[in-house]
Amino acid sequence: MPKTNPGRFFEDFRLGDKLRHATPRTVTSGDVALHTALYGSRFAVQSSDAFARAIGYPRSPLDDLLVFHIVFGKTVPDVSLNAVANLGYAGCRFLSPVYPGDTLSTVSEVIGLKENSNRKTGVVYVRSIGTNQHGVEVVDYVRWVMVRKRAEDAPVPTELIPALPKALDPDAIGDACPIIDPEAYDTGLAGQRHRFRDYAIGEKIDHADGMTVEEAEHMMATRLYQNTAKVHFNQFTEGQGRFGRRLIYGGHVISIARALSFNGLANAFHVAAINGGRHVAPLFAGNTVFAWSEITDVQELPGRDDVGALRIRTIATKDQPCAAYPLRVGEDYDPAVILDLDYWALIPT
Amino acid sequence: MPKTNPGRFFEDFRLGDKLRHATPRTVTSGDVALHTALYGSRFAVQSSDAFARAIGYPRSPLDDLLVFHIVFGKTVPDVSLNAVANLGYAGCRFLSPVYPGDTLSTVSEVIGLKENSNRKTGVVYVRSIGTNQHGVEVVDYVRWVMVRKRAEDAPVPTELIPALPKALDPDAIGDACPIIDPEAYDTGLAGQRHRFRDYAIGEKIDHADGMTVEEAEHMMATRLYQNTAKVHFNQFTEGQGRFGRRLIYGGHVISIARALSFNGLANAFHVAAINGGRHVAPLFAGNTVFAWSEITDVQELPGRDDVGALRIRTIATKDQPCAAYPLRVGEDYDPAVILDLDYWALIPT
Amino acid sequence: MPKTNPGRFFEDFRLGDKLRHATPRTVTSGDVALHTALYGSRFAVQSSDAFARAIGYPRSPLDDLLVFHIVFGKTVPDVSLNAVANLGYAGCRFLSPVYPGDTLSTVSEVIGLKENSNRKTGVVYVRSIGTNQHGVEVVDYVRWVMVRKRAEDAPVPTELIPALPKALDPDAIGDACPIIDPEAYDTGLAGQRHRFRDYAIGEKIDHADGMTVEEAEHMMATRLYQNTAKVHFNQFTEGQGRFGRRLIYGGHVISIARALSFNGLANAFHVAAINGGRHVAPLFAGNTVFAWSEITDVQELPGRDDVGALRIRTIATKDQPCAAYPLRVGEDYDPAVILDLDYWALIPT
Repeated sequence: MPKTNPGRFFEDFRLGDKLRHATPRTVTSGDVALHTALYGSRFAVQSSDAFARAIGYPRSPLDDLLVFHIVFGKTVPDVSLNAVANLGYAGCRFLSPVYPGDTLSTVSEVIGLKENSNRKTGVVYVRSIGTNQHGVEVVDYVRWVMVRKRAEDAPVPTELIPALPKALDPDAIGDACPIIDPEAYDTGLAGQRHRFRDYAIGEKIDHADGMTVEEAEHMMATRLYQNTAKVHFNQFTEGQGRFGRRLIYGGHVISIARALSFNGLANAFHVAAINGGRHVAPLFAGNTVFAWSEITDVQELPGRDDVGALRIRTIATKDQPCAAYPLRVGEDYDPAVILDLDYWALIPT
Repeated sequence: MPKTNPGRFFEDFRLGDKLRHATPRTVTSGDVALHTALYGSRFAVQSSDAFARAIGYPRSPLDDLLVFHIVFGKTVPDVSLNAVANLGYAGCRFLSPVYPGDTLSTVSEVIGLKENSNRKTGVVYVRSIGTNQHGVEVVDYVRWVMVRKRAEDAPVPTELIPALPKALDPDAIGDACPIIDPEAYDTGLAGQRHRFRDYAIGEKIDHADGMTVEEAEHMMATRLYQNTAKVHFNQFTEGQGRFGRRLIYGGHVISIARALSFNGLANAFHVAAINGGRHVAPLFAGNTVFAWSEITDVQELPGRDDVGALRIRTIATKDQPCAAYPLRVGEDYDPAVILDLDYWALIPT
Repeated sequence: MPKTNPGRFFEDFRLGDKLRHATPRTVTSGDVALHTALYGSRFAVQSSDAFARAIGYPRSPLDDLLVFHIVFGKTVPDVSLNAVANLGYAGCRFLSPVYPGDTLSTVSEVIGLKENSNRKTGVVYVRSIGTNQHGVEVVDYVRWVMVRKRAEDAPVPTELIPALPKALDPDAIGDACPIIDPEAYDTGLAGQRHRFRDYAIGEKIDHADGMTVEEAEHMMATRLYQNTAKVHFNQFTEGQGRFGRRLIYGGHVISIARALSFNGLANAFHVAAINGGRHVAPLFAGNTVFAWSEITDVQELPGRDDVGALRIRTIATKDQPCAAYPLRVGEDYDPAVILDLDYWALIPT
């Protein structure tokens, strides 16, 4: 038996498989500083212990997407080492805040399998759960990924396409946000005066700024998450592959778009849930990312009057500013679009 | 009203305007590690808690320029989002040491306004003050910046060119440096034997080393400071602009020059004040920065015999070593010069 | 006397010289986060405080090579500023674990000198010892380096080629690893099921993954170690030199190879000693590093049954995958080989 992990191929998965992923990870203020250096995020709750304490947190929590990326990274060696593409996410809920010093671990369950008609690949659906050192769940999500088969004629495991929620209900989100004091939330220090009531369904916001991405940056980010997917790191192999270059981790795009969204959504401080996300096209080093958002729903949280929920669709593009809200060209996505993300963010009332 | 911050234009400023800037920021040992990775600074007081404690600090303070950059970064969305160029700094005093765990905030006051004769731009002078979580002032400085007008025929606000100090007096500096024990200051561990008395007015020092700058580095640094000036990040737009490429944040140049200056000024451990600074020419990724310094004054600090003050003029160049102390060609700066910085540093007696 | 450090030349060294190096350095969780971002290392003991505590550490220790690089970096201004090449390492033992908050210092002794026949250079052998803030030795190693002479006709100091151990004995290693509880060591969380008994002499392991290196990354790493060797940073000068570009710090290659080796050696969590290392060829930005290892010895540690020692020879290559275990072409190294490293790692029984 070779000691090197060859990764699972499609035919190696079985419905109900429970995967306990390697490398628990203590997150620290070092990770937070790197996150700031990589994305330039400016949300006050995550930037300032003093601001976070004033509204009711014990200190600044980690950025939600940083938690997501670290929990996600652990699944790669077991789920997607032989992946062709990460196809989508659904039902992602942040369940408990994470603070520097916490240790994160991940387990996954195979909840769906479907061979593709070409018989060379199949789609694997996994539900992954990240927990802290006390066993408390901090994030929970489903992703599906296209995985190569080792052999075209390998027997196909029992198939199932799982039912997935189109979106999470407002009563299913918000657990990772303690009750805050919205009057202590200082919009002057937070950078924008708009609160929950100031956003309306259908409103579009151009986040204006553009961020060019470098190879060193996306690789440092992806290694920080201990995500080992080969396509991000190996120019020797990728140079001979379909794109001729390293592919940027999709989560890096999500974090760039979220950081850009501060400009217009400065008080939407907490990503409570990701309803779904699609990496429409790949991003490469040298491209400049822009983003715009549409408010697609506005909901109160049952039993809470400190924060409300904005459902936000964020579209990221490459090398195309978003003043005109680029999305479709005919039936298809505008070729500049790289990300179509649907999430719930909490914002003070 | 759009929710995206369009930034102020020249005609939006009024004398006496008080600006309370967004995103308070807790600084951590993560920021310190990134600062070391970005500049390679080697000053013992800032590198070693044990060294700092031995001379009288409770622990290593943050590098003064790291504090400056973080305080400065907060002013960008309110002051210089529509800037053409940052023209200069004056009267910058470091007032209290900053330690990991402190939270920094910034307020500014508009103290000067002057439209340019082309009527397309004007100069805005602001005094900015950085404070910690206890409201203690940690840094205080004036900068002036050329800002675009929204409309050429916009009415001009009341104008005033403020009187600015050419240099700070020795009795105005040193507050950020606790009384230290100069005998406990171990020059062997600090890397150089020269103390206050070993420097003489007129002395020139070639800092010898050169540092090449990469896009990923200056962008990570500038995002770490949550500085959002568009020219540093957006190759798509800047590629069509006057330089055809991203411009490097001037403060990044100052920090590189300061780190290089360790070689010759290893015991000048604390930047107590910046009398003035001028970014003579832009720096771009791929350029190599060199630096040399001249000691322009040597002063005792009133009432203190633990440290003395060296007034230092540091010249940074790009792609030109500094053994010949490049500065002028005729009336003009040598075209290799990018920075002309005048500051006070404290050094043990 | 110029205040800039010109570095020692070969004729400036004397046998028995004791060098006390500058810039003590407090290591923090910020350094740990950067180490993860730069190499993507996934060893559970160094990644998770919870995992480390479960087996008997008070918390996660720093990665051994991070300690080595920081201790090594301090020696550069005194030993190798005028070096042509770092020739080798021997007898490196890790003596005590290092934790965030510790402060590292380095002293060296000149233990060997030998002029080269061309009379332009000589080889300097130094034994360097890194200590923490309590004076406890944490690492101890010999390196030898080819240093330029200032003048070809300078008198040659007394010469001596020191006797160096080919390898450390099992009873000389392990001091930096506390007694652990091997039953509490969870191989599921650590990422691989193989323990001490599962490795055999002669076994070869292809670490499979490849990692492309960028200029920004190796410069950030090398500055993090406060290593000032000019060849890594100065494209202006190096562009005119023998390679036409910046040379990557050899230690960066060692750390990349060690991180890649997780895939196959996931439980070999502690580098206890480096018997020897040779940088066979230079690495440049843009190259992709691969690695493979051979188990060259398997030894119990005298008096311990919690961990055993694997002697590992790790070969790193550039731009050549290692499935075929590339090493020699005839008498010479395969031209793709860049590193030949011989070390002892500890692994739970």
